[in-house]
Amino acid sequence: MLGNFVYANPTKLYFGDEAQKNLAEALMPFGRKVLLIYGGGSIRRNGVYDDVMAALRATDKEVVELSGVMPNPTVEKLEEGIKVARDNDADFILAVGGGSTIDYAKAVAVSAWYEGNAWERFWIRQEDPAPGERIIPVGAVLTMAGTGSEMNGGSVITNPDTKMKIGKVFGEEVMPRFAVLNPRYTFSLPRRQMVAGIFDCMSHIMEQYFSGDDDCTSDYLAEGLMRSVIASSRVAVKDPENYEARSNLMWSSTWALNTLIGKGKPQDWMVHMIGQAIGAHTDATHGMTLSGISVAYYRHMMKYGVKRFARFAKIVWGIPANGKSDEQMASEGIDALGAWIREIGADSDISSLGVTPDMLDAIADSTIVLTGGYKTPDHAEIVEILRESL
Amino acid sequence: MLGNFVYANPTKLYFGDEAQKNLAEALMPFGRKVLLIYGGGSIRRNGVYDDVMAALRATDKEVVELSGVMPNPTVEKLEEGIKVARDNDADFILAVGGGSTIDYAKAVAVSAWYEGNAWERFWIRQEDPAPGERIIPVGAVLTMAGTGSEMNGGSVITNPDTKMKIGKVFGEEVMPRFAVLNPRYTFSLPRRQMVAGIFDCMSHIMEQYFSGDDDCTSDYLAEGLMRSVIASSRVAVKDPENYEARSNLMWSSTWALNTLIGKGKPQDWMVHMIGQAIGAHTDATHGMTLSGISVAYYRHMMKYGVKRFARFAKIVWGIPANGKSDEQMASEGIDALGAWIREIGADSDISSLGVTPDMLDAIADSTIVLTGGYKTPDHAEIVEILRESL
Repeated sequence: MLGNFVYANPTKLYFGDEAQKNLAEALMPFGRKVLLIYGGGSIRRNGVYDDVMAALRATDKEVVELSGVMPNPTVEKLEEGIKVARDNDADFILAVGGGSTIDYAKAVAVSAWYEGNAWERFWIRQEDPAPGERIIPVGAVLTMAGTGSEMNGGSVITNPDTKMKIGKVFGEEVMPRFAVLNPRYTFSLPRRQMVAGIFDCMSHIMEQYFSGDDDCTSDYLAEGLMRSVIASSRVAVKDPENYEARSNLMWSSTWALNTLIGKGKPQDWMVHMIGQAIGAHTDATHGMTLSGISVAYYRHMMKYGVKRFARFAKIVWGIPANGKSDEQMASEGIDALGAWIREIGADSDISSLGVTPDMLDAIADSTIVLTGGYKTPDHAEIVEILRESL
Repeated sequence: MLGNFVYANPTKLYFGDEAQKNLAEALMPFGRKVLLIYGGGSIRRNGVYDDVMAALRATDKEVVELSGVMPNPTVEKLEEGIKVARDNDADFILAVGGGSTIDYAKAVAVSAWYEGNAWERFWIRQEDPAPGERIIPVGAVLTMAGTGSEMNGGSVITNPDTKMKIGKVFGEEVMPRFAVLNPRYTFSLPRRQMVAGIFDCMSHIMEQYFSGDDDCTSDYLAEGLMRSVIASSRVAVKDPENYEARSNLMWSSTWALNTLIGKGKPQDWMVHMIGQAIGAHTDATHGMTLSGISVAYYRHMMKYGVKRFARFAKIVWGIPANGKSDEQMASEGIDALGAWIREIGADSDISSLGVTPDMLDAIADSTIVLTGGYKTPDHAEIVEILRESL
């Protein structure tokens, strides 16, 4: 823990198969006009909508609904949300869904009362809200585990015209005030979405883990989380209604990206940057853009952080060292990661996501390059990683 | 994660060797009259007092000092604090010290405006404050890692007359609003105090880990923390001014007991219950009462949770399974724990703490018996564990 940092995470989490029973109490302190945001309407079929409406009625809220939030929420959709929030003078936003819906709710919350162009200010210029600026408080009811959006200040918005998919991490004033985490709410999710969420979670941990050379508690916590995700994923892909496994996956996803395991250390995040660029060009499922490139990416990075990759093999995958070199161990660890991607049924290439050889240059152009990893890839290397992932 | 639970932890943590630079900002939102609480005055010698006073002056606070908080804060001292807080109508309590000082500050905070007997209500009857009851907000500047008091609602108070040392866990409204965690503030601590803090932290993790049979993310996080504590302890006992090691120990202690790693699972806590009874009879250092009995305690419990103890050996201590039975692995794990206790210089018996054979019965009588572990020990078994620890 060599860095100086602040940890603050005020989100109150209600967890368990009866978590929704706390929703009315959680809503109580906030104003009467609630903007209810959700996605394609699956919550109307699986009973989650009814649970939420019961809590809203019990607390006598005035509800405005805004649905149709897409997997990669667009600037255009954001503009719609801003208008609805302002026209109705929403006191509170309740997001019901997965990461896209909660990300979107946070984007609306922070943008609704900003007078200028929100996309330009928050996503392009990467600005924070000014102190005292009006931000609408957000709450979340989670229906898909993976992004961790339920306990962080992150938001990702896509501009399909410019093919930019940009993430922004706001401060604690934008984090959800509460989140209802009922693992059963994730049972009706299609298997492919569940698997994408599992890999997204694993990738969040690896992005924070594969960086830094010091001895740091955060990396030990990351190893614990990865071991739990791997163990539970193996149960969940065989038995998606296994409550124990799905509950561990939900809890692990929340802690994989609520800032804890990145404290006091540098972080990489280039798999996400490349994955987001793929998403902007293809509209592919986020988690699958990450699984599609991770093996190629880490093979490129391995030699610059070989001790960490060897530790990954030993601790996370339980590969016995038996006198092997760090290089050998590191390589076996990445093999194990690749085998696990196939085992759980995540995509292990990007051709299946619609990426073709002629797109690689443009995807690399859309990739935001960060410098926190073991080695910062240049344009040519990103193209190479993409090519190896086809 | 089979249980239903709520996680809420609003404490804002400022961490690092420049953490104190945030103290003035952290104090800003609170009222002007600050009750400054500390222990025996070591903070006046190591510069911490000066740093704190500078922040208090910078924010124009009116300061009342209350010092002399002892390692096991007494009911009598609590009464003194209540009087000082009321007489001065304190708006805020700033605790500067280790777990005893912060525990004590929380006890004063919650009791100051209660009209009846605080010891009876909160510690004997284990009541919570009623909603809306006046609780003075607390902040903390940590000078010793171990108890985790800086990020939880816990408080332990001792009644020397009745030989009762009782812990109470209050809700989030009693948790420190912020804590300043500067690892350098722990450098001047005597080695014995450092080691006691290390074992206290390890014990907190084990109390939560050795319970439950399901697959639970919390246990994987606990394993990560234990591995980090063990690694850093080995550096710190050789080189107490190793910043990296001391910072990991500080961060691990905070996360060992801020409720995270106990979520969704049963917990044991009998080592602490017996240790606290020893403390009430001897005034011994808390961490050493735990190290003194842990090996005997876990040898008694091992057969009731043998799979978990075998996992402890393999994952936490890295002992190769090599076809050994769970019983054999479990036993080797406890051997490793015992060897580590000696290696870091923690006490491995209770005779050195002043416990004599004639006291065992009375200590067992003072022990509060909890039922969350693999097996609930009865009076005879507690006496037996104590005898084996002499």
